[in-house]
Amino acid sequence: MNTKRGLQPREARSSQVLDLPQPYLLFLGDSTEKGYAKTAFGLRDWAPDRCVGEWSCAGATVSTGLARLTPKEARARGAKALVIGVANTGGVISESWLPSLMEALESGLDIISGMHAKLADVPQLKSMAEHTGRRLIDVRTPPRTITIATGAKRSGKRLLTVGTDCAIGKKYTALALARAFTQRGIDNDFRATGQTGILIAGGGMPMDAVIADFEAGAAEMLSPDAAAQHWDVIEGQGSLFHPAYAGVSLGLLHGSQPDVIVVCHDPDRKQVLGLPISLPDLAETIDMNLRLGRRTNPTIRCAGVSLNTSDLDENTAIRLLADESARLGLPVADPMRAGEAFERLVDECLKQN
Amino acid sequence: MNTKRGLQPREARSSQVLDLPQPYLLFLGDSTEKGYAKTAFGLRDWAPDRCVGEWSCAGATVSTGLARLTPKEARARGAKALVIGVANTGGVISESWLPSLMEALESGLDIISGMHAKLADVPQLKSMAEHTGRRLIDVRTPPRTITIATGAKRSGKRLLTVGTDCAIGKKYTALALARAFTQRGIDNDFRATGQTGILIAGGGMPMDAVIADFEAGAAEMLSPDAAAQHWDVIEGQGSLFHPAYAGVSLGLLHGSQPDVIVVCHDPDRKQVLGLPISLPDLAETIDMNLRLGRRTNPTIRCAGVSLNTSDLDENTAIRLLADESARLGLPVADPMRAGEAFERLVDECLKQN
Repeated sequence: MNTKRGLQPREARSSQVLDLPQPYLLFLGDSTEKGYAKTAFGLRDWAPDRCVGEWSCAGATVSTGLARLTPKEARARGAKALVIGVANTGGVISESWLPSLMEALESGLDIISGMHAKLADVPQLKSMAEHTGRRLIDVRTPPRTITIATGAKRSGKRLLTVGTDCAIGKKYTALALARAFTQRGIDNDFRATGQTGILIAGGGMPMDAVIADFEAGAAEMLSPDAAAQHWDVIEGQGSLFHPAYAGVSLGLLHGSQPDVIVVCHDPDRKQVLGLPISLPDLAETIDMNLRLGRRTNPTIRCAGVSLNTSDLDENTAIRLLADESARLGLPVADPMRAGEAFERLVDECLKQN
Repeated sequence: MNTKRGLQPREARSSQVLDLPQPYLLFLGDSTEKGYAKTAFGLRDWAPDRCVGEWSCAGATVSTGLARLTPKEARARGAKALVIGVANTGGVISESWLPSLMEALESGLDIISGMHAKLADVPQLKSMAEHTGRRLIDVRTPPRTITIATGAKRSGKRLLTVGTDCAIGKKYTALALARAFTQRGIDNDFRATGQTGILIAGGGMPMDAVIADFEAGAAEMLSPDAAAQHWDVIEGQGSLFHPAYAGVSLGLLHGSQPDVIVVCHDPDRKQVLGLPISLPDLAETIDMNLRLGRRTNPTIRCAGVSLNTSDLDENTAIRLLADESARLGLPVADPMRAGEAFERLVDECLKQN
């Protein structure tokens, strides 16, 4: 992220959490559907300074609009790694991508993937990486040095985005808040916890891939001691109310020991994504996160709510945000809509206790 | 456990959760301190029908009192595996144990370990196991077939022990309740979630070693659909209030979808084991488990409290149990003390809704 660093030098952290080679060349495979290239678009939108250009196979029609560069050209412009910015059904590495990936390794680029399939499980890639001395980096693989959490208080300030469900805006809300903090001159780090966030941040912790016993410990490692006025803005995962992922959410909540939470919700979402179970309401979500969060930070507070209003027109959205704010007695904003409501949410996040 | 099986035949489950070769020969290493042989004593006390005898190195002074048998003698009496029933500092496999372990493999026994170190990482054991066609089984290694939880309601009844802290009696309480159910003719299975429990049960799921995203899914797999009147008595892990392990506890709570919880506590424990953080009180622990547990089982109820009174004399213990029962309005018993209080707790567990 385009933010200043905290107390710890980058080198001191790099042995602990993922730290990716940058800038990137974005690889779009043979994609003809924008929906499969979310990672590439997320990187273009949130980490333009980390992207030197894009590359794809013959037949691809999707483009991020960045300069089209061969791996060799990208390397010459400073790229350190090719990022697989596209997904396909099954999360596997397509046979048709192999020539491009081999070319990247030969041109001096590492390869970074957020897919389920491991790069090193493809024999050609493995032997070419060994031959060229390049790295194959799977951002879903957590570091081996995670320890059991202690719950001990760390210095610096922390914000965690939480939600009524998974895939409901926790990453974008954290990114928008980190950007707003930076615009106000507040020293901060966006702390990524999922694969796209990790690619955007250039590092982080894949919380869903950590062994359960080490979950809170991984969160403690992700946001280490920092200067008293420094903020870590931590990307949330799952939901305390999700029947599959609540354990991930609770480990992240305890280990992050946030001073502030922001609760993310989509007013159109009535059921848990993909499951016939109703969503919790916002008041219950706030209450439960605060009750459980007090265990590692007794002064935890909720700064407000982030609502996804992308399906509404401007006026309807603004009215809904105002109504919800009045109902909950808290700032309610859509971080994708700049304006007064969002500024109030940022104010509330940064309020001195 | 000495209980009848539920709806699913043993074979149908064996591909899903750990299912250990039995009966065992208990191995005590070169142990001279009883405290290091907790696993062996736990097996002797809770699974005597699974233990044909014990074996140890020269110099060992600790004994479970079971017949001393060489691996060959044990094999002749039907033993299928040698269980490492002893721990040492660091959780490693001692050099001095190797001749005994090699002898076990040569005699036709598999080896089962609950230690952190993996058996197959010892080259001599690995090659001897390959040579003899025997298995090296680490009960901390979860199966590879775990899927993401769905939260869907399963048939049969479930009880989960939960606690104010880790290492506070959840395993013993579940074992005692399963035994009491069996004595009353109630069809049930003790479902183990930690290494000692798994050895005692002859199978189970090492919940703390599962990847966080699959935690609730592992719990769903551990207690599959069963006959309507069948009980799964599930060993709890950690505590919702433990700053390191709460995620494990919540995943287990959601995935177990218990009809009944029993809360375990030690009245002498004022702080989280090994951490300077006070324990939650019993009422708060009950309330939080019920609130979160309702997410996957709206009819969850608390049947009572299991108190560890092992440091008290009989009269003081009985008085404390009665006082706590009056205060909480729930049965309170020490499952290690048979008697009226415990029978009331069992009654409450089995009460029809």
